[in-house]
Amino acid sequence: MSSFRLSPPDLRHYARAGLSGDVIAALVVTIMLIPQGMAYAMLAGLPPQAGLYGAILPLILYAVLGSSPALAVGPVAVVALMTAAAAGLVAEIGTPGYQLAALWIALLSGAMMLAMGLLRLGFVANFLSHPVISGFITAAGILIALSQVRHLLGIQTTGKTVPEVIPSIIANLGAVNTITMVLSAAVLGFLFWSRKGLAPVLRRLGLGAGAAGLLAKGGLFLAVLASTLTVWALGLDARGVRILGDIPAGLPPLELPAFDRELITLLLVPSAMIALVGYVESISIAQTLAAKRRQSIDPDRELIALGAANLGAGVTAAMPVTGGLSRSIVNFDAGAQTRAAGALTALMIGGALLALTPLLYFLPSATLAAIIIVAVVSLLDFRALPRAWAYSKADGAAMAATMAVTLTLGVEQGLMAGVGLSLALHLWRTSRPHVAEVGQVPGTGHFRNINRYEVVTTPEVLTLRVDESLYFPNARYLEELVQSRIAERPEIRHLVLMFSAVNEVDASALESLEMLLEKLHAAGASLHLSEVKGPVMDRLQRSDFLKHVDGVHLTQLDAMLALAPGLTQATLDRERYERRKANA
Amino acid sequence: MSSFRLSPPDLRHYARAGLSGDVIAALVVTIMLIPQGMAYAMLAGLPPQAGLYGAILPLILYAVLGSSPALAVGPVAVVALMTAAAAGLVAEIGTPGYQLAALWIALLSGAMMLAMGLLRLGFVANFLSHPVISGFITAAGILIALSQVRHLLGIQTTGKTVPEVIPSIIANLGAVNTITMVLSAAVLGFLFWSRKGLAPVLRRLGLGAGAAGLLAKGGLFLAVLASTLTVWALGLDARGVRILGDIPAGLPPLELPAFDRELITLLLVPSAMIALVGYVESISIAQTLAAKRRQSIDPDRELIALGAANLGAGVTAAMPVTGGLSRSIVNFDAGAQTRAAGALTALMIGGALLALTPLLYFLPSATLAAIIIVAVVSLLDFRALPRAWAYSKADGAAMAATMAVTLTLGVEQGLMAGVGLSLALHLWRTSRPHVAEVGQVPGTGHFRNINRYEVVTTPEVLTLRVDESLYFPNARYLEELVQSRIAERPEIRHLVLMFSAVNEVDASALESLEMLLEKLHAAGASLHLSEVKGPVMDRLQRSDFLKHVDGVHLTQLDAMLALAPGLTQATLDRERYERRKANA
Repeated sequence: MSSFRLSPPDLRHYARAGLSGDVIAALVVTIMLIPQGMAYAMLAGLPPQAGLYGAILPLILYAVLGSSPALAVGPVAVVALMTAAAAGLVAEIGTPGYQLAALWIALLSGAMMLAMGLLRLGFVANFLSHPVISGFITAAGILIALSQVRHLLGIQTTGKTVPEVIPSIIANLGAVNTITMVLSAAVLGFLFWSRKGLAPVLRRLGLGAGAAGLLAKGGLFLAVLASTLTVWALGLDARGVRILGDIPAGLPPLELPAFDRELITLLLVPSAMIALVGYVESISIAQTLAAKRRQSIDPDRELIALGAANLGAGVTAAMPVTGGLSRSIVNFDAGAQTRAAGALTALMIGGALLALTPLLYFLPSATLAAIIIVAVVSLLDFRALPRAWAYSKADGAAMAATMAVTLTLGVEQGLMAGVGLSLALHLWRTSRPHVAEVGQVPGTGHFRNINRYEVVTTPEVLTLRVDESLYFPNARYLEELVQSRIAERPEIRHLVLMFSAVNEVDASALESLEMLLEKLHAAGASLHLSEVKGPVMDRLQRSDFLKHVDGVHLTQLDAMLALAPGLTQATLDRERYERRKANA
Repeated sequence: MSSFRLSPPDLRHYARAGLSGDVIAALVVTIMLIPQGMAYAMLAGLPPQAGLYGAILPLILYAVLGSSPALAVGPVAVVALMTAAAAGLVAEIGTPGYQLAALWIALLSGAMMLAMGLLRLGFVANFLSHPVISGFITAAGILIALSQVRHLLGIQTTGKTVPEVIPSIIANLGAVNTITMVLSAAVLGFLFWSRKGLAPVLRRLGLGAGAAGLLAKGGLFLAVLASTLTVWALGLDARGVRILGDIPAGLPPLELPAFDRELITLLLVPSAMIALVGYVESISIAQTLAAKRRQSIDPDRELIALGAANLGAGVTAAMPVTGGLSRSIVNFDAGAQTRAAGALTALMIGGALLALTPLLYFLPSATLAAIIIVAVVSLLDFRALPRAWAYSKADGAAMAATMAVTLTLGVEQGLMAGVGLSLALHLWRTSRPHVAEVGQVPGTGHFRNINRYEVVTTPEVLTLRVDESLYFPNARYLEELVQSRIAERPEIRHLVLMFSAVNEVDASALESLEMLLEKLHAAGASLHLSEVKGPVMDRLQRSDFLKHVDGVHLTQLDAMLALAPGLTQATLDRERYERRKANA
């Protein structure tokens, strides 16, 4: 494991590669981060500076402790939405209690990430399966976009879920502020156009392709500038267009939020979910970008760095943070070489906080809402659901449940439903394992399903390949299945259980195997095992079972050579004969 | 599946076998059931007749619908304890609300069993693993015995768990009623002695071995008779010995208990647990006894019959019922041939209710407490814990947790802890699967772990046998493991994943395999699969993965003949050469 500091070789490498890539990347990311940070703070129900503060100390801590050179840490949309949902459980938006809750969410989720990293428990994040996280992100994107409609239209709405927000929007359509709506439409139109259309225009203006591509990312900045100037010049704030107002100038305060045991207890579960989602989102981005440059990411170290970043957010009046997709890609494309790019971003944001906040006074909320909507549209992946369903009904069902519950009941419930259903379906599946009757592929030591391959069998020997570990949810299933097969075919003298796919036999299953053995002996049949794996064999040797079973064979071929020697050897010999004939 | 009624062949068979076995069995069971039924009603916190009523309609319904000829249904100790725990959550013992709760527990658990049986969901009971149920029964036995100490000593105690009851007993030791204590000691001593000592005495008195064995089961009856007469003759009830008092004569009432939505909501979860535990206890007894006579038990039909029996209990002012161990063994040993024995028992209990209740007026509570203690001692199995631990730490831990939580927090919490821990340990284990590097057992098509067997390998080919289904909790684990192996050994050109033990590849794992493939190709190595099972192959064919993977081989030998043909063929040839030489 590499050191957590920038080591001398790192620094020498850095000097050789030059600052230029990192400086340019930091500049582009800063230009995106100022409006995005304020927008995500608004989405989280927090004052705009909470988003900007989230781009200072957290970024520095990640730069010191993290392992990804390209990951851009800071406020992100999904975590902002989850923060709003969790803080909304304990306090009214806009109250000091709400802001306190957001700080404790950052501290708690940070502490959990840190602990998971130090205890090397990063694998816990794997319980958020891919379909669940993908369904969750799409559903969260829809909720986020819906939550911004009120800013686009200049109305008030209530509720957080689809069945609450949509009727609320409809009920308030009469109160739409036309100027706000026109402004929103202009900004949204410009932003969607600028994602594809701005770069070609810049190139036609004589810029190089690379520079044009990067400058096009400044579309956000242009939208902010133009809409702010418009509101200021035309005095639109007096005509009902909501504006940002005062942002305190200067660097964030450094202070531990007030301790409140009851608040903290209520926030434990939501903070754990925010930690998990934030980590999974961030590590996926970091690994994808690392793979492109053949670098590698240390998951436990990432947890520690993200944990520290969130603890940093919690003590500097900032919102919870994690690695964000859009800024990380921009960071990567703009040539960020080392984590210093993140630290430089933090410095630039700090500079902006010292100098630029008065200029943001007239920035309309509608512009920030438009920025959020453009950002989350890239999160929506509606094709993922039919794709997952086509591959596996269980994965599709888990994704559908996650989406449906997230949209109708909320983010926390949606995640819980997805994880719960994934686990339940896994348990249900393993409780009724696939069991194949197998026979010898002629002339080989290989045994396959009699229903799929042309194989050799004999009526006296029944060989079943059990395609699952034997453990308590399926312990009795095999017993009952074997009993019914034996009852149907009284000619069976030997049962061979082929254990090539059995990775565990727990105490309940052992009990069941012992019952099975007794029943087989009572029916005058014998029980053999074949291809038992080392770890399973070690376990069985601690019990009496192996003393009573009629035979344990290294390979299924050995078992068949013992139980039906004539037949099995014959197919081997015939095959060899035919091969020799073919060679002759 | 056989019919739910006694069919004509059944009746003819019955006429041939004669009634005698069933009549004798019913008589012996009745003699046990009258004191046990009242005792378990006391344990459940209900009036004594609730136990006797539980031995009438429920037994008749089980006789009509059930599938076990030997199972003796009725009040049992563990279910009585669980009933007391659940009813105690919603009402004070002795109140009408408490009795109403007990009736609704019978109705709800009966309805759940019936539904599980009709929907063929009996496998759900398998989630109570063997170590969990065994630990639970032992812990419940301890709690039951502790709860009876107050009756043995004639004191009042409070609480239901070990940390509550033991201090309460100690605090009340000053109030012990000496006469009650002496009476208890005499009854307990007699009952323990009669389990082994009564039959030899009866034989010496000239009885045949069989008759003596059966009459010895009347030890309970003798204890009831002698202690009741003693209390009556010496007027001990006036000296502080608590007695049963009036039991209403006559058959049970038939009425639906009052509907109370709030009560029912509170009782749903405890009733589900009582249904599960009752079913698991009953089916285990029925299957064990059926195996002795080569009969078979239909689990779904058992659920339906037990469900109906509990519904019958709920509408006849009775306590919840299930199959009990001690009376079933007596029933079996006494020669019960058909389920008619149960119906006859119900008739005899009905007769006793019509004629005998005045005789039970002076029966001391201490005698019933002693009967309970003697019954639960046979449930205690303290060796099960070290045995489970020796076989598998996970099973041992689940059992220990079940016992510890049951004893200290209560029955419901104990069961939940046991099931929860079993599942968590399973998930934890499968999230870090065993992966073996394998090589060719020389001269065969068999491939085993290089650390356990003398096998042939080549440095250019790494073959890993993954000993677990690939699904979301372990999706990234394999990816990271392969990456580190490849990084350690740059000479590897081909990776073969041997899928003989992979029973599923879900969408998360597929994603991870695709990432792995990309990384391997980037590192100039190829990825092959071997021994992919039919169901897994079907699934993979629905994705693009098979188009990009470098090879899928029916057998691992095929894979090695393709990737390292010289080496692999050489060992086959050498083996054949040596075998021929040996034969020559």
